[in-house]
Amino acid sequence: MRGLWLEGGTLSLRDDLERPEPGPRDARVRVLCAGVCSTDLELVRGYMPFRGVPGHEFVGVVESGPDDWVGERVVGEINAPCGRCQTCDAGRGNHCPQRSVVGIVNHNGAFAEHLVLPSQSLHRVPESLATEAAVFTEPLAAALRIGEQVRHAPGARVIVVGAGRLGQLIARTLKLTACELSVVVRSDRGRALLANQGIHCATADAFEPGSADMVVEVTGNPDGFGIARRLVRPGGTLVMKSTYAGALTLDASMVVVDEITLVGSRCGPFQPALELLASGRLEVDDLIAARYPLTRGLEAFDAAAQPGALKVQVEVSA
Amino acid sequence: MRGLWLEGGTLSLRDDLERPEPGPRDARVRVLCAGVCSTDLELVRGYMPFRGVPGHEFVGVVESGPDDWVGERVVGEINAPCGRCQTCDAGRGNHCPQRSVVGIVNHNGAFAEHLVLPSQSLHRVPESLATEAAVFTEPLAAALRIGEQVRHAPGARVIVVGAGRLGQLIARTLKLTACELSVVVRSDRGRALLANQGIHCATADAFEPGSADMVVEVTGNPDGFGIARRLVRPGGTLVMKSTYAGALTLDASMVVVDEITLVGSRCGPFQPALELLASGRLEVDDLIAARYPLTRGLEAFDAAAQPGALKVQVEVSA
Repeated sequence: MRGLWLEGGTLSLRDDLERPEPGPRDARVRVLCAGVCSTDLELVRGYMPFRGVPGHEFVGVVESGPDDWVGERVVGEINAPCGRCQTCDAGRGNHCPQRSVVGIVNHNGAFAEHLVLPSQSLHRVPESLATEAAVFTEPLAAALRIGEQVRHAPGARVIVVGAGRLGQLIARTLKLTACELSVVVRSDRGRALLANQGIHCATADAFEPGSADMVVEVTGNPDGFGIARRLVRPGGTLVMKSTYAGALTLDASMVVVDEITLVGSRCGPFQPALELLASGRLEVDDLIAARYPLTRGLEAFDAAAQPGALKVQVEVSA
Repeated sequence: MRGLWLEGGTLSLRDDLERPEPGPRDARVRVLCAGVCSTDLELVRGYMPFRGVPGHEFVGVVESGPDDWVGERVVGEINAPCGRCQTCDAGRGNHCPQRSVVGIVNHNGAFAEHLVLPSQSLHRVPESLATEAAVFTEPLAAALRIGEQVRHAPGARVIVVGAGRLGQLIARTLKLTACELSVVVRSDRGRALLANQGIHCATADAFEPGSADMVVEVTGNPDGFGIARRLVRPGGTLVMKSTYAGALTLDASMVVVDEITLVGSRCGPFQPALELLASGRLEVDDLIAARYPLTRGLEAFDAAAQPGALKVQVEVSA
């Protein structure tokens, strides 16, 4: 089959990939459309030593597997827990140490004509929801994860640092909560998109230091942390969403003195994300920068890697 | 008056300090006894540019001020908030940006014959509680702060990293909660003291990585963070108690991927600490390494700075 293949930090388009065969508890999905995520770009840059087909934001149609799934249009959870360890027993399958992660750890992903997933990872896409919008399910779930982890008081001052792909979605989910929301944004394009949604934007300098009850850092680079740290008030919460290759240096003593809470935040709940998209309360269409056919998948990655680029989608099959 | 004076990173014993005069809302306290804390040692090492009398763990007798306080044996809150700013209005006086901090920021401390405090900072010491034990009120409050910030499930696996002055107190407060408690300890003395309290101890290598639901890092140095980070499980909580000069480098991406919550934790509630000490449910007498008269205050600091040293107290007046 055709697909993108990552090996030794090099991404290539190949026509000779083996079509994956589902096991007894799996489904094989024909991929319709997949989105390029910052994590995909970081994988190419060596953030994690992944060898295989990247891609974990996708919509597809089940072509083989359990009867009740065949023919369904689906999205898929990206963490596949072992189901048998202490962590899984404790209900924390997303942190199962033996888990595979679609397109990231030990599991071929969605930038290929077919992928295989455990049936229990699948969620039906509501009929009314367009494929291009449903591709946002996984990143939108990651945005909603924040609300599962952290509660802000009604009227709390919340600042999102970063208005890229994930930052836009996070800002839009927070807009639906009772908070005084602002976004630190550098690009004109990011600012215009947020302004269209009625979300207040400014550059980092425009905010008073220590003025936010909660800050979400989603710039995707270590510089964003310094901005976020400066904006959060003593006793406040800084949600960390950025993953990147390389270390972060911080003043731990001031985290102690200011009693800051830092919350690492990753994957979230798919079903609420799907429902939110289907409800029409959260717009995503304006976040699609470009669509490329799979044969031009390498160009899609290049386009997504441009500074300030929004969501680039790869149309894998019709 | 006589006292220890810190200036330009040099601590000296002086006899020519001016006796502080209380304002209308203040009380002047004759210091009986004061404890040397790691923060005092870090101040001498340049952690913060403090010039004045250090010392914030103390018991004294009110010698002038409001009538209902004069003659009372007291301990004192260390943060003196302005009472007029937004932060104070929000009930977060301990984080007031204009606050002074006794013996640490803009307020002369307790290693001197007298100190002045706002009356509202004072707490009466119960008659049954010995002065030497009551000196532990401030650090015990800091230990109890953890329970104000973080809740652990009954039976949770909790590891305290560090068994120094504050680590001992934290371990003892956690022992009173329903958790499976262990302490990472290097010194034989620290281990023996905890074993006497029926608290399980081991070296860091003895614990399985990722095995703790909650870890409290209280080593007072940057190396402790690495140990704590290794021990906390994905989705777990790492409480940061150490302040020190210098930066910390960490793998922020793995904090995100593992969804770790890092909680900076500083000062805590005095009244519960006093009550706990008075109840006899938490022993502190075995934590006193030595007592020095004020005239030998510099020796007291040297003794407290020895690796693994426990609490050194300075007897300021009889």
